[in-house]
Amino acid sequence: MGIKVGVLGARGRVGEAVVAGVQEAEDLDLVAEIDRDDDLSTLVDAGAEVIVDFTTPDAVMGNIEFCVEHGIHCVVGTTGFDKERLAKVRSWVEKSEGVGVLIAPNFAISAVLTMAFARQAARFFESAEVIEFHHPNKLDAPSGTAVHTAEGIAEARREAGMGAQPDKTAQSLEGARGADVEGVPVHGVRMSGMVAHEEVIFGTQGQTLTIRQDSYDRTSFVPGVLVGVRNVAEHPGLTVGLDAYLGLEG
Amino acid sequence: MGIKVGVLGARGRVGEAVVAGVQEAEDLDLVAEIDRDDDLSTLVDAGAEVIVDFTTPDAVMGNIEFCVEHGIHCVVGTTGFDKERLAKVRSWVEKSEGVGVLIAPNFAISAVLTMAFARQAARFFESAEVIEFHHPNKLDAPSGTAVHTAEGIAEARREAGMGAQPDKTAQSLEGARGADVEGVPVHGVRMSGMVAHEEVIFGTQGQTLTIRQDSYDRTSFVPGVLVGVRNVAEHPGLTVGLDAYLGLEG
Amino acid sequence: MGIKVGVLGARGRVGEAVVAGVQEAEDLDLVAEIDRDDDLSTLVDAGAEVIVDFTTPDAVMGNIEFCVEHGIHCVVGTTGFDKERLAKVRSWVEKSEGVGVLIAPNFAISAVLTMAFARQAARFFESAEVIEFHHPNKLDAPSGTAVHTAEGIAEARREAGMGAQPDKTAQSLEGARGADVEGVPVHGVRMSGMVAHEEVIFGTQGQTLTIRQDSYDRTSFVPGVLVGVRNVAEHPGLTVGLDAYLGLEG
Amino acid sequence: MGIKVGVLGARGRVGEAVVAGVQEAEDLDLVAEIDRDDDLSTLVDAGAEVIVDFTTPDAVMGNIEFCVEHGIHCVVGTTGFDKERLAKVRSWVEKSEGVGVLIAPNFAISAVLTMAFARQAARFFESAEVIEFHHPNKLDAPSGTAVHTAEGIAEARREAGMGAQPDKTAQSLEGARGADVEGVPVHGVRMSGMVAHEEVIFGTQGQTLTIRQDSYDRTSFVPGVLVGVRNVAEHPGLTVGLDAYLGLEG
Repeated sequence: MGIKVGVLGARGRVGEAVVAGVQEAEDLDLVAEIDRDDDLSTLVDAGAEVIVDFTTPDAVMGNIEFCVEHGIHCVVGTTGFDKERLAKVRSWVEKSEGVGVLIAPNFAISAVLTMAFARQAARFFESAEVIEFHHPNKLDAPSGTAVHTAEGIAEARREAGMGAQPDKTAQSLEGARGADVEGVPVHGVRMSGMVAHEEVIFGTQGQTLTIRQDSYDRTSFVPGVLVGVRNVAEHPGLTVGLDAYLGLEG
Repeated sequence: MGIKVGVLGARGRVGEAVVAGVQEAEDLDLVAEIDRDDDLSTLVDAGAEVIVDFTTPDAVMGNIEFCVEHGIHCVVGTTGFDKERLAKVRSWVEKSEGVGVLIAPNFAISAVLTMAFARQAARFFESAEVIEFHHPNKLDAPSGTAVHTAEGIAEARREAGMGAQPDKTAQSLEGARGADVEGVPVHGVRMSGMVAHEEVIFGTQGQTLTIRQDSYDRTSFVPGVLVGVRNVAEHPGLTVGLDAYLGLEG
Repeated sequence: MGIKVGVLGARGRVGEAVVAGVQEAEDLDLVAEIDRDDDLSTLVDAGAEVIVDFTTPDAVMGNIEFCVEHGIHCVVGTTGFDKERLAKVRSWVEKSEGVGVLIAPNFAISAVLTMAFARQAARFFESAEVIEFHHPNKLDAPSGTAVHTAEGIAEARREAGMGAQPDKTAQSLEGARGADVEGVPVHGVRMSGMVAHEEVIFGTQGQTLTIRQDSYDRTSFVPGVLVGVRNVAEHPGLTVGLDAYLGLEG
Repeated sequence: MGIKVGVLGARGRVGEAVVAGVQEAEDLDLVAEIDRDDDLSTLVDAGAEVIVDFTTPDAVMGNIEFCVEHGIHCVVGTTGFDKERLAKVRSWVEKSEGVGVLIAPNFAISAVLTMAFARQAARFFESAEVIEFHHPNKLDAPSGTAVHTAEGIAEARREAGMGAQPDKTAQSLEGARGADVEGVPVHGVRMSGMVAHEEVIFGTQGQTLTIRQDSYDRTSFVPGVLVGVRNVAEHPGLTVGLDAYLGLEG
């Protein structure tokens, strides 16, 4: 018998990929597929132990409140959480002993690991730059993930008491050295055919270390969601970010 | 005032790079350069707090014994340590409270991190392969580092209860799928112009994670040695492998 | 007014992608979509100037014969052409002045260019290896494209009078050095999440050249098909392989 | 008996690498090593057929004039050639039937091929970007080679009637999208440990093509110089740029 899983937002594109992922996993049982007009009580009737929520900012708070009340753990990929919303979720789980809620902005496990490893590596290399690659329809540059990665590197450098990166550039075309994110250069490539890719390069005497993440299609969040589903019961309370589930050091 | 450092094997090619590295580091003071015919008592006279030993299997045991006896910490890159030798070193440091000895087979920090990250990532990806690239004068294939990395991945997979990697290959030219190291394929490339490079690739649904290490010249061990020198005093007793100094999880 | 294009095999998965590609191209007009049970005369009625054929080995010969007879140029991706079949097609086009037929085993333009550039580069580098990466459901290793690439490199090396590649490997785990394709090592990686990728690495003193091709999804043949459609009228007679249309040197 | 080669600037760092390269080549005979104070007539006495000149802008014109007059072919890597100087060299070789002079700004054969392949590939891909990687002591960004590569891509795009690259970026940190070189984004990375590396990425539907060049040390120009030495006699007159010797299409 596997963990009993309900999927909320089950008929959206993302939700469908989650449904398929749960169905293929031998240790998980899909017991409920909920969408916009379905009643949440179905989850209770079906005995759901964990739900996955990829719905909308409008719906998600009600969903979490209901599930926590009924002792159902939550793995949430829906966006729109600010400090206030997180505080509210925290107040719910505090009253409901043992229930775990994971809210993560990014479930692509390779991206989460890239960020975590970048933080760990940062203090050993005097140089660090980030290059991200996306399809040309992306509206922002650099990507939020790349900025977040650079901020993590910058923080690790500050904690280690490291100064500015070595860079003797005296003559430069505008933009050549990338965007400056707290002292870490970030370069954004927009390329037909690509999906979402990030490369972090570290350098010191005689060597470099490169950590690269490639997302080839839009289902790359599924393995991370399943990690969440399998482990949420062991993380009571509110957890923000998948990395806390990966057994890595911060 | 920096840490007072003595270098043993100071006139060998490796030792010369260590000497240069110590001299350039603002927080380290080079107080002694010892080679084959020099007297170890120079170290005591010079007030060395830490020594770096890149000498020979013949010389290294005497050097460590002398230093531990005189309360000098040791960072050792010399090869040839088997269980017996390690036990002997351990017996010396046990008698000498607070003295630290670091013996590491690989000081290239990018290589050590690659191995450590590979171990951490392994259980999240059903596929994992290692490709190493070296100059064509290398005698063994795959490299010891690549085999060691693959073994680490295999161990992490076993601990996580993972089975064999997915691979439907039915028709194959001999060698196409690489060497099998405990179920992890390892490929060795021999390429004019290259020095020493290792790439670990992990894959799961819709995504891959690549960790790559490039050594561009033969001084790439220096930053790792300096990490050793700076931290050995805080690691009393015998430590084998630089990773224990990097604050990473195993 | 654009070139009038008919698509044969229009309701297969590949055909659908071709149809979409033709519809999006401003200089092309889709005038006919033919599948299994449709009458070829539709092509004539619609005024098709060029057809694209992704059907079956059973159907393709009849399709080509009909089109050539009616003065319609053919771009063919259907498999199963041996010397006999090619000779038959050649005999048809010889009778039909000015009609062009392009039969290509690979329309992924990045893969075709990788092979072409590899041939051009080969004689300048003493080392050359090929690494291909595919999803784990692939049945053969190495891929046909990788073998073909290696054969092209080997031929260019022979023509330039080059000997064996430098390789001092004396001790090796079985398979570590890859499959030997006419003296060129070929390595096959099987990786969850990947689609189809090929990397050719060349090395000589102090430098390497890497040519890499990544296919991220199954529509990567479309741009090459469109190159065929746009240029087939200027290549009367039978042409085998897209490279002849790319204005490259062999 | 090999080609008789004289090296000018033989005791400079670059010249020394050329001398070593000629000595190791079985089909070449080193017959003269000339430096600042040596007499050029030594070349004639030694029977030099080809000279390699890595001297200074001050010395090089006299050297070429002397060699051309004496029927000795020239392979020149010295910098400082403007239109006037090239015109003067051209006037000399015109008078001296059959003598070849090759003047090249870049002898790193992998870099020259990268540029040539980039030009060939450009018209098949709607997206193209250049990333160059250098040590942090480099003064200019992007590198001259990267700018030159981007200009070549831009020219090939114009010749093929291609418009602007697709890029929906609406929100951007300054510099994130690189420097704009005639519509081709160019990114410069400055990284401890690296030497000189260039990556050109092309993208179209479902696929990318990457051409990457890595220089690992400062002798990477030697193989290109030897290509020059072996072929200069077959290229009478003045040739600018090594690519003309590589049998590639422009």
